Amino acid sequence: MTYKAVLLILDGLGDFQYKKLGGKTPLEAAKTKNLDLMSKSGETGFMFPIAPGIIPGSDTAHLSIFGYDPHKYYFGRGLYEALGAGLELQEQDVAFRANLATIENNLIVDRRAGRKSDFMPSLFEELNGITIEDVTVIAKHTSEHRGVVVLRGPGLSDKISDVDPHKTGVPINYCQPLEDSEEARKTARIVNQLMHTANEILERSKNNALRKSHGLLPANALLIRGAARYHTCESIFDKTSARFSCVAGGALYKGVAKFVGMNVLEVPGATGDKFTNLKAKLEAAIKAKENSDVVFLHIKATDSFGHDGDFLGKKRFIEKVDREVIPGLMRNFDVVVVTGDHSTPCVRKEHSGDQVPLLVWGKNCRADKGVFSETNPNATLFIRGQDLINIILNKIEILKKYGE
Amino acid sequence: MTYKAVLLILDGLGDFQYKKLGGKTPLEAAKTKNLDLMSKSGETGFMFPIAPGIIPGSDTAHLSIFGYDPHKYYFGRGLYEALGAGLELQEQDVAFRANLATIENNLIVDRRAGRKSDFMPSLFEELNGITIEDVTVIAKHTSEHRGVVVLRGPGLSDKISDVDPHKTGVPINYCQPLEDSEEARKTARIVNQLMHTANEILERSKNNALRKSHGLLPANALLIRGAARYHTCESIFDKTSARFSCVAGGALYKGVAKFVGMNVLEVPGATGDKFTNLKAKLEAAIKAKENSDVVFLHIKATDSFGHDGDFLGKKRFIEKVDREVIPGLMRNFDVVVVTGDHSTPCVRKEHSGDQVPLLVWGKNCRADKGVFSETNPNATLFIRGQDLINIILNKIEILKKYGE
Repeated sequence: MTYKAVLLILDGLGDFQYKKLGGKTPLEAAKTKNLDLMSKSGETGFMFPIAPGIIPGSDTAHLSIFGYDPHKYYFGRGLYEALGAGLELQEQDVAFRANLATIENNLIVDRRAGRKSDFMPSLFEELNGITIEDVTVIAKHTSEHRGVVVLRGPGLSDKISDVDPHKTGVPINYCQPLEDSEEARKTARIVNQLMHTANEILERSKNNALRKSHGLLPANALLIRGAARYHTCESIFDKTSARFSCVAGGALYKGVAKFVGMNVLEVPGATGDKFTNLKAKLEAAIKAKENSDVVFLHIKATDSFGHDGDFLGKKRFIEKVDREVIPGLMRNFDVVVVTGDHSTPCVRKEHSGDQVPLLVWGKNCRADKGVFSETNPNATLFIRGQDLINIILNKIEILKKYGE
Repeated sequence: MTYKAVLLILDGLGDFQYKKLGGKTPLEAAKTKNLDLMSKSGETGFMFPIAPGIIPGSDTAHLSIFGYDPHKYYFGRGLYEALGAGLELQEQDVAFRANLATIENNLIVDRRAGRKSDFMPSLFEELNGITIEDVTVIAKHTSEHRGVVVLRGPGLSDKISDVDPHKTGVPINYCQPLEDSEEARKTARIVNQLMHTANEILERSKNNALRKSHGLLPANALLIRGAARYHTCESIFDKTSARFSCVAGGALYKGVAKFVGMNVLEVPGATGDKFTNLKAKLEAAIKAKENSDVVFLHIKATDSFGHDGDFLGKKRFIEKVDREVIPGLMRNFDVVVVTGDHSTPCVRKEHSGDQVPLLVWGKNCRADKGVFSETNPNATLFIRGQDLINIILNKIEILKKYGE
């Protein structure tokens, strides 16, 4: 008999200490009686999600934590976003992460069109099915101002520059081929035409008229980035003989999970933001247990508070997770692992390369008397992200002995 | 001048905590005044013998601890067993780990023929020299019901299935080629014929008649597994410029040591079980010091108690080692390193992928105020098995500076 594990990733969990939190990090300052209970009888320590000092993106961090070397399996953001949006990709496709933005006189006013999702699904739908030369454009909304664009047709390449300048007050970049090939030139040409056609369609869209009538910025420009070809990899089941399920809100996390072959659940109310339905996600994770050995449960908001520089919000959200999620995990899983995919220090408002706290609780665990925190005198685990899955599979007795 | 080190491996040392041991592990519960003394002035920490979570076999663990990546240097159990049995292998040989077992009506009754070694050396000797086609069978007893079988002849392969089904009440498996080659088919054919011939010889053996007259199960069937071709590697001396000796009971440990080019001593009374002569092994280790820089001293019984689920026995045996072995090591070596090759938690009765405690004492050591234990607030060493030899060579001042 084997056991069941849940891997709870609190996105961007790691942080620094703040005077206004009494010299503590948000995790240290948070009142977390359930996490404290787990620390008392579990193993604690630190994880560098990729390698010491390396600043992970959300995509590369999750690849690494799932046991896939991102230097080998990272093919550009578009691939994972498209998979996470539920698109079935084909061999020749090139996929992009997309934003709808607001431009005025050809200058970008807001890269996220006010970050308001109103009418966004319909606006993306208006772009779906555009054809340019022999290439069809697939467009799909994911969350807020975000979506996915896939170019489908012969002779395309991912060796092109991004059109998103990542700032305002400037025009959209002209897409350039990044290698001397017919495929790269063709793809750049189509992308530039698409920027133009999309702007035309969005400008005259009645959905944008409705947005304006609601006092919202028009989403009148398409920004795409992270061109990626379709790729596959050995599935996590073939690698480990363990069945994995994914409960997440954000498309990217679902996409990376799908890429490695996890069973990705669609959970109504799992929005991947601060207002996500934690209860629905917990219930989905418990239900997913039936058909899997390890459930990957992703909670995003800790990272968002980090990006916003809101250490008090981060602390309170950690307390909410401790109250609403942890007890259910302890009751329903034999092994519970809690960690982050990277640090997002509130003072930095961006990801950092610092290690994240790690907690392994349940069957086959020693009590190391450590704490789940950025400071921990009794820590016994010092690992890298790529080691985490083996740590879990050892605890739930799925891993086979290597040698005799 | 350089110093002398001993590397004491307590097999399967790592464990979990037990209520009946006052919430302590066998190592924590054991009264070990000499190990405690070493901890007080030495460096302590943890080692993952292969990598975090990976469950080591005894063979892969020792390769790793000797500094050889098992993913590169593990060629199947048979090779190391044969070397450990003192056989000189040739290029074309295929070697196997062997058991003599008891069968009745073609079904396996006991895979170890009652685990009684009586007449076992003679029974293995009866199988030695069998010829099948152009292949000669070399058979040699090692310990209890265990031995080694080597097939010597042209055109053989290790790409064949094991005949040992690893359970009772079933027939011996039919050996199958695992690749589409003449060599694999030939080897499988010879193995199947060998199973048949061995059974015939063992059935009519007067040694088995004697076993029966002593009330023992007849050892009337040969079980072989872990087919391995002959391989060599760069010797540990060429790699490190240090001279290594091995004092061990079990054939496997001697075999891995011989594979990497250690000087392997034959120690009468070193049986590799719970009744091993610890005093004889200590004396052999001290004597081996004359011609070596590092002595590898292997003690098996901690692992056997783990496999038996006997945490009290494990605790007592650790106390025995502390009493009978540690003081002699401290008196006779400049550097003493104590660790395990893996954890064998009594509650699991099998190897696990959890880290093992590590203690480095003597010359060139800091006192980190840690303890030699599975929980250790002051640990300063967090390493993998493949790093251990360099740790030792640094302390005894043999390692050369890398760079200037």
